[in-house]
Amino acid sequence: MYSNLELPKGFKCAGIAAGIKADGSKDMALILSEEPATAAGVFTTNQVCAAPVKLCREHLAHGSARAIVLNSGIANACTGSAGMVAARGMAAEAAEAIGCQESEIFVCSTGRIGPQLPLDKIVVGIGNLYSAASGGNVQATAEAMMTTDTRPKVSVAETQVDGKSVKIVGFAKGAGMIEPNMATMLSFITTDAAVESQALQAALKKAVDLSFNRITIDGDQSTNDTVLALANGAAGNVPLGEASKGWEEFSEALNNVCHELALMIVHDGEGADKFVTVHVTGAESDAAADLAARSVANSLLNKTAWAGEYPNWGRVMDSIGYSKARVDEDRVSIRYDGVQAVANGMRTEIPQAELIKVVSQSDFAINIDLHLGEGSATVYTCNCTEEYVRINVE
Amino acid sequence: MYSNLELPKGFKCAGIAAGIKADGSKDMALILSEEPATAAGVFTTNQVCAAPVKLCREHLAHGSARAIVLNSGIANACTGSAGMVAARGMAAEAAEAIGCQESEIFVCSTGRIGPQLPLDKIVVGIGNLYSAASGGNVQATAEAMMTTDTRPKVSVAETQVDGKSVKIVGFAKGAGMIEPNMATMLSFITTDAAVESQALQAALKKAVDLSFNRITIDGDQSTNDTVLALANGAAGNVPLGEASKGWEEFSEALNNVCHELALMIVHDGEGADKFVTVHVTGAESDAAADLAARSVANSLLNKTAWAGEYPNWGRVMDSIGYSKARVDEDRVSIRYDGVQAVANGMRTEIPQAELIKVVSQSDFAINIDLHLGEGSATVYTCNCTEEYVRINVE
Repeated sequence: MYSNLELPKGFKCAGIAAGIKADGSKDMALILSEEPATAAGVFTTNQVCAAPVKLCREHLAHGSARAIVLNSGIANACTGSAGMVAARGMAAEAAEAIGCQESEIFVCSTGRIGPQLPLDKIVVGIGNLYSAASGGNVQATAEAMMTTDTRPKVSVAETQVDGKSVKIVGFAKGAGMIEPNMATMLSFITTDAAVESQALQAALKKAVDLSFNRITIDGDQSTNDTVLALANGAAGNVPLGEASKGWEEFSEALNNVCHELALMIVHDGEGADKFVTVHVTGAESDAAADLAARSVANSLLNKTAWAGEYPNWGRVMDSIGYSKARVDEDRVSIRYDGVQAVANGMRTEIPQAELIKVVSQSDFAINIDLHLGEGSATVYTCNCTEEYVRINVE
Repeated sequence: MYSNLELPKGFKCAGIAAGIKADGSKDMALILSEEPATAAGVFTTNQVCAAPVKLCREHLAHGSARAIVLNSGIANACTGSAGMVAARGMAAEAAEAIGCQESEIFVCSTGRIGPQLPLDKIVVGIGNLYSAASGGNVQATAEAMMTTDTRPKVSVAETQVDGKSVKIVGFAKGAGMIEPNMATMLSFITTDAAVESQALQAALKKAVDLSFNRITIDGDQSTNDTVLALANGAAGNVPLGEASKGWEEFSEALNNVCHELALMIVHDGEGADKFVTVHVTGAESDAAADLAARSVANSLLNKTAWAGEYPNWGRVMDSIGYSKARVDEDRVSIRYDGVQAVANGMRTEIPQAELIKVVSQSDFAINIDLHLGEGSATVYTCNCTEEYVRINVE
């Protein structure tokens, strides 16, 4: 519960039920800055992308923003020109309520692909959100962005910049359809730091690469992924650039918030009950290590083996072997946490029971050393259970 | 049941239990040509590959072969130099029993990665196989190569070449771990046609590309995939080259056998109960169409939607969007069999019930037209059920 948490200075938020989800649960949220904020954004790379993503890209070009308005339940994806009209309508309504330019509003949607947004409900919802907005509505706001998530996801960091206290509060939603390049996930970062526009964009891009782009649940990438950051300067520091004193502290705090939110998403993977860190070292390059790690993390055979608490290192060998990373099987070593299962490409004398003990934990690491170079990478994933299939069958 | 089926002239086979599988079921097979046969082979592209695959590649260089000896239960993969010794021992033992060169023996293994082969049992098994071999042992031979397969897989074709009757009998095993480039599958093609060595290799490569490389079950590629063809010339035709009269008839018969075996593998996908054809047209190139089709066929979200008999075309749009094929979402059309779900990237007015009717069948097609060019490709896949996860968890 985040009921005692306050947003950074100058921010308000709200989450309500607007009747978009059939079950009557919360499905609209607003995150609002009292003053114009510097904005940054990172979006899905899917060629099929939702109307709100297109609109966010367009509005991001203006550089400053007042608010993010979002709905869950309907993705407003594959909705053609009517979908763009609805996204613009949502932005226009929020702009009117707040009294700002339409281009200062970011719009996000998540949920089913195909249906058009019920703009009448959205309009009423925006009015209600604006009335309800306050600095302490973090819990309701986080709940309103959930789809198959089982719990809201919020992360907080505080640091000192230029002698001023700076706060960062981030929200996220995730669950299924998560792979590199941020699939079906939304994240919204608010901070009262003053940050220059280009610097904020660079910091956000880097933070996303180290966090949301390092997690994978089912290897699918969605049409709606969006990470937005708003920095409103209410902390009163001299605006941060990449060369500023305090830049490192700010970047690190931002990285920490994104990293924590990303791990929360994996921990809440659909039907998953194990959190697995795949760590590859000794690759020819960091890029090669990344390819090998993702191949292991995305293998359905590995993910089901982990669900069975079975240390099937053969499937790990198999999945690095078909990755695009160079592998010399006779050099590979694999450790489950600290327990060495494979040396020189063959199983060690370690009793199976020792390995079973590791994979029976709810959180463990597969450490793979390719013994070919200095490249390394880490990917965070989860197991694939019958429950995952049940959720997605339904 | 293939109990009345005879191998092509001059071939014998056998399948027995040699005690490698713990449950006492059949686990060794022999396919033997009475005279030296022309040989061709296609192997896994996995960098981690089993000892028998390495040995087959080496022996294939000799061009002629007498026999294939195989075991199921243990893959002899990730077994280092001891594994190579075992594979060579298996070949040497078969060569001695048959009275031929070791290089005329192909060795295949399938099953668990890691354990060493019990060479003592293999040696006894080879003796028993050789004694039992006959032209009519097709059923037992096909059974002996099964792992998680639920049924043996055999395909037959007959054609006329050069005024002579020519027969092709092919075996296959499959089930899980099937993706492009032939994962955890074995297939053995026998024919009494006389075929020149290079022509047989070219024909087999092409047949594999049109069949085993067009199926996908879970996107994983195995360490042991092998397709071997033996042509012993007992039909008495003038040896076929690629320019020969009768070449087309022979190639077509070979393609048909491989295609039928490939479809049998998908139909027997682990835990699967739906056979889905993904057909992409209108891509910029055939290669782009292939990328889009595989992206759809490998998406866990699509495969679970099909298991739920839910026509989730949004997930299909999503998965073509993140493929490497160029997609312009406003041009895409999607038909479930003949029923158009999507036109110009948006859903049509077709009632959901019509689409549900299609995906409720055990066999249906997703036809995607990208409306960008002339490229097309077809991939065959199956749904992903809770049963798949259960099998692989265990």
